[in-house]
Amino acid sequence: MIGVQELVQIINGQYLGKSDIDIDGVASLNRADEHKISFLSNKKYTKYISTTRAGCIIVDQAFDISAYNYKNFVVCKDAYLGFALALSYFYKNQLKSNFKSHKASIDKTAQISEEAYIGDFTYIAENVKIGHSSIMPMVYIGENTIIKDNCIIYPNVTIRENVEIGNNVIIHSGSVIGSDGFGYVNNNGKHYKIPQVGKVIIEDDVEIGSNTSIDRATLDETIIKKGSKIDNLVQIAHNVEIGENSILVSQCGISGSTKIGNNVILAGQVGIAGHLKIADNTIITAKSGVGTNIKKSGIYSGIPVYDHAKWLKSSATMPRLPELYRKIQELENRIKELEKK
Amino acid sequence: MIGVQELVQIINGQYLGKSDIDIDGVASLNRADEHKISFLSNKKYTKYISTTRAGCIIVDQAFDISAYNYKNFVVCKDAYLGFALALSYFYKNQLKSNFKSHKASIDKTAQISEEAYIGDFTYIAENVKIGHSSIMPMVYIGENTIIKDNCIIYPNVTIRENVEIGNNVIIHSGSVIGSDGFGYVNNNGKHYKIPQVGKVIIEDDVEIGSNTSIDRATLDETIIKKGSKIDNLVQIAHNVEIGENSILVSQCGISGSTKIGNNVILAGQVGIAGHLKIADNTIITAKSGVGTNIKKSGIYSGIPVYDHAKWLKSSATMPRLPELYRKIQELENRIKELEKK
Amino acid sequence: MIGVQELVQIINGQYLGKSDIDIDGVASLNRADEHKISFLSNKKYTKYISTTRAGCIIVDQAFDISAYNYKNFVVCKDAYLGFALALSYFYKNQLKSNFKSHKASIDKTAQISEEAYIGDFTYIAENVKIGHSSIMPMVYIGENTIIKDNCIIYPNVTIRENVEIGNNVIIHSGSVIGSDGFGYVNNNGKHYKIPQVGKVIIEDDVEIGSNTSIDRATLDETIIKKGSKIDNLVQIAHNVEIGENSILVSQCGISGSTKIGNNVILAGQVGIAGHLKIADNTIITAKSGVGTNIKKSGIYSGIPVYDHAKWLKSSATMPRLPELYRKIQELENRIKELEKK
Repeated sequence: MIGVQELVQIINGQYLGKSDIDIDGVASLNRADEHKISFLSNKKYTKYISTTRAGCIIVDQAFDISAYNYKNFVVCKDAYLGFALALSYFYKNQLKSNFKSHKASIDKTAQISEEAYIGDFTYIAENVKIGHSSIMPMVYIGENTIIKDNCIIYPNVTIRENVEIGNNVIIHSGSVIGSDGFGYVNNNGKHYKIPQVGKVIIEDDVEIGSNTSIDRATLDETIIKKGSKIDNLVQIAHNVEIGENSILVSQCGISGSTKIGNNVILAGQVGIAGHLKIADNTIITAKSGVGTNIKKSGIYSGIPVYDHAKWLKSSATMPRLPELYRKIQELENRIKELEKK
Repeated sequence: MIGVQELVQIINGQYLGKSDIDIDGVASLNRADEHKISFLSNKKYTKYISTTRAGCIIVDQAFDISAYNYKNFVVCKDAYLGFALALSYFYKNQLKSNFKSHKASIDKTAQISEEAYIGDFTYIAENVKIGHSSIMPMVYIGENTIIKDNCIIYPNVTIRENVEIGNNVIIHSGSVIGSDGFGYVNNNGKHYKIPQVGKVIIEDDVEIGSNTSIDRATLDETIIKKGSKIDNLVQIAHNVEIGENSILVSQCGISGSTKIGNNVILAGQVGIAGHLKIADNTIITAKSGVGTNIKKSGIYSGIPVYDHAKWLKSSATMPRLPELYRKIQELENRIKELEKK
Repeated sequence: MIGVQELVQIINGQYLGKSDIDIDGVASLNRADEHKISFLSNKKYTKYISTTRAGCIIVDQAFDISAYNYKNFVVCKDAYLGFALALSYFYKNQLKSNFKSHKASIDKTAQISEEAYIGDFTYIAENVKIGHSSIMPMVYIGENTIIKDNCIIYPNVTIRENVEIGNNVIIHSGSVIGSDGFGYVNNNGKHYKIPQVGKVIIEDDVEIGSNTSIDRATLDETIIKKGSKIDNLVQIAHNVEIGENSILVSQCGISGSTKIGNNVILAGQVGIAGHLKIADNTIITAKSGVGTNIKKSGIYSGIPVYDHAKWLKSSATMPRLPELYRKIQELENRIKELEKK
């Protein structure tokens, strides 16, 4: 429970409403009661403003509150950011501390901080180093791997040998960091495995979703740079480099040795071929396929990709292709008639 | 071993054949021996009818048996349903009961039915409730999660905190229920995590394949309604709602807050953008991408989708686009000639 | 440490350089020091030849070394194969032996070779047979499953009951072998599960990436034939057959009962519909969708696929479709003018 005036300061908002409300949590417009703070960040949900029972409502500066002046509004530069700050106030993260389960299997050469949490049935191999981080139950951590501070590794994650993980990294369940790259050489029709002996480096502030695979490098390293966020079921092949603060949405796949720049957004189910460079600030829209370098930042779509604005027009014409065919035949017939004259 | 007449009653068939056969199992046409019941539900395999050694063969009413009247046929309204019923007679499901492994880690506050099966190396957190269900080895179940009766949770599944699972639910290995939604707010180029504090609700009779990810809601809940079936490697984002009896084939992905109706079929590798509504009874064909609401049920294809019948024609013209270009150039030249006259 | 002359013999190369170098490992051109062997197999990296500090460099016969005659070259028929052989010399595989963890749960009916390695928290069910193979920690192996010799099963893999795994098989973390096929029969709007009681057979020399799902057959078996290599996050449905020495790149999906031939390459995110046959030596390019049998080997692209060379041309015209529309309208107007005369 916190006074609304105090909460509004925490989320950098301007408060327009009754001053004596107490707030005990965050809820959606539909579900909020009079002790909840709610928010409007997507216009689709504006209709719920008039009916919500929320104690107060975070809105953007641009939102016209005049039609609802009986409501308690919190005006923020970015309502979504205000909402995130409010949520972060009420719900702390899941970092657990100061526990080493006697049901875990921890090699005697591992160096584990007193402040670390190591859950049941977790396996920690030789020479692993772990700082003040939460390693939940049922996690595998291979030889020589390093995990710094303030990380949460969720259950059923596998982190193989020689992986380096920075600070404030979150890895969700089922993900695999450091599986072998998919490298073979064909000799007389048989595929011979190329040993995959490189590393994976995950820098600070990276979050990795559930059931995502990040392969180790053949040589050298696969790197995810600081601040990048990776969704569920994403494939990152060997020797890939992801720049800083990039966003990889679910089910996208990056082939071997490709370098993705900073602040790039790859939407869902995007695929990128191998040995490419994608410029900083590039956006690739959902389901698109990239087969060549992208040197100039912009929005790209299609299989293979081209300029998104052009793609919108081209894809809008797709359903009319059969009609186009008939039209061309008709024109040819009319030309034939003219030619006969 | 069961007499064929008795088995035929169980599967609601009409029997045309020798009455004294004993049946001890179900087999495909190619592999069946004289004590097996087999079936024909896909016409592609009709050629095997004449050579099969099966004791009897389930066929649809529409199948013309006159050419094979020396065979023992079981005529069903739906051969595939008859086959399923025969299989279900011979092979019981894998629900195990009445066992709590001393190698499991079960919090003392958990309420677990005497009839439940809890396998080795399974972790059950605070305040979990489990009915008469099988929790196989190596499963993680987080705080406050509820699993009702007759469920099978296969090895290496992760079910996070505050998840509600109904009756008769099956979850296959490697799947993750309740990982954090992929929600960030960008402030000055950095992505700040929005705490994901909602739930996942899985209603009765839902089956979830292997290595599928279902994210918890930011607020409120992600819901899979009763009778829906989800295949392997499927992505269900935060706050998604899947209606009743829908089918999501492998590798499809649903973005945040989208509502899928009842009896919808999403074929393999389909992608659906966020904040959309898909009408009941809609079918989206494989690899298609949906970027807008679908208000009218029907079959849709393409990236982005449009009417499937139109898509079939348009996609058939795709290989002829270069030819179309040349034709247009030719027509223009002929027009120029005419214009000179 | 090995003399360069001796190493060159091991990798079947011809040596052009100073004879007294000792080599202690393999490194990329950028990272190598004077005791490392490096390689050039992708022309993109030729620029690094002049600056590398590598002790010697493996190149193809076709590479023109004349411009760099101060470097120590090892000329191989296939530089990539030479590199793979050098790596294999320095880095042995991860097969561990002769250990059964007392923290594993091994059924007393299981038959496990003295030479096998069984890691902590691994669960081995009734009647399992395991040869001289490494079963890493946290692996589940179901009843009656057989694993022969020289296999490595990485942590958090699930292998269900009645699976047969040959020799030299590698399965990476998070993968699930033998989850139920996605089979239902619809009766009055409800989906009834068809019991999935067949097997999975993985033949010799197969490698399976991380977080891949291979479903068991409904009846009979799902088969991966010898020498095939499967990448991460791949979906193989029930009753699929993959031929010998085929390559399935990440995130591709094969629907039920489809038969893929020998030496086939399916690139990333490819989808293949059910009940199809794909001819030997076929290549399907990334993100393509196959909806009909492929009877003739070749390279295919598109959704649905057609000849790759044609697809290259057609997809190049896609961005120009709107222009094509305008051109046709213009031609029609010109024809109208001519018709007026």
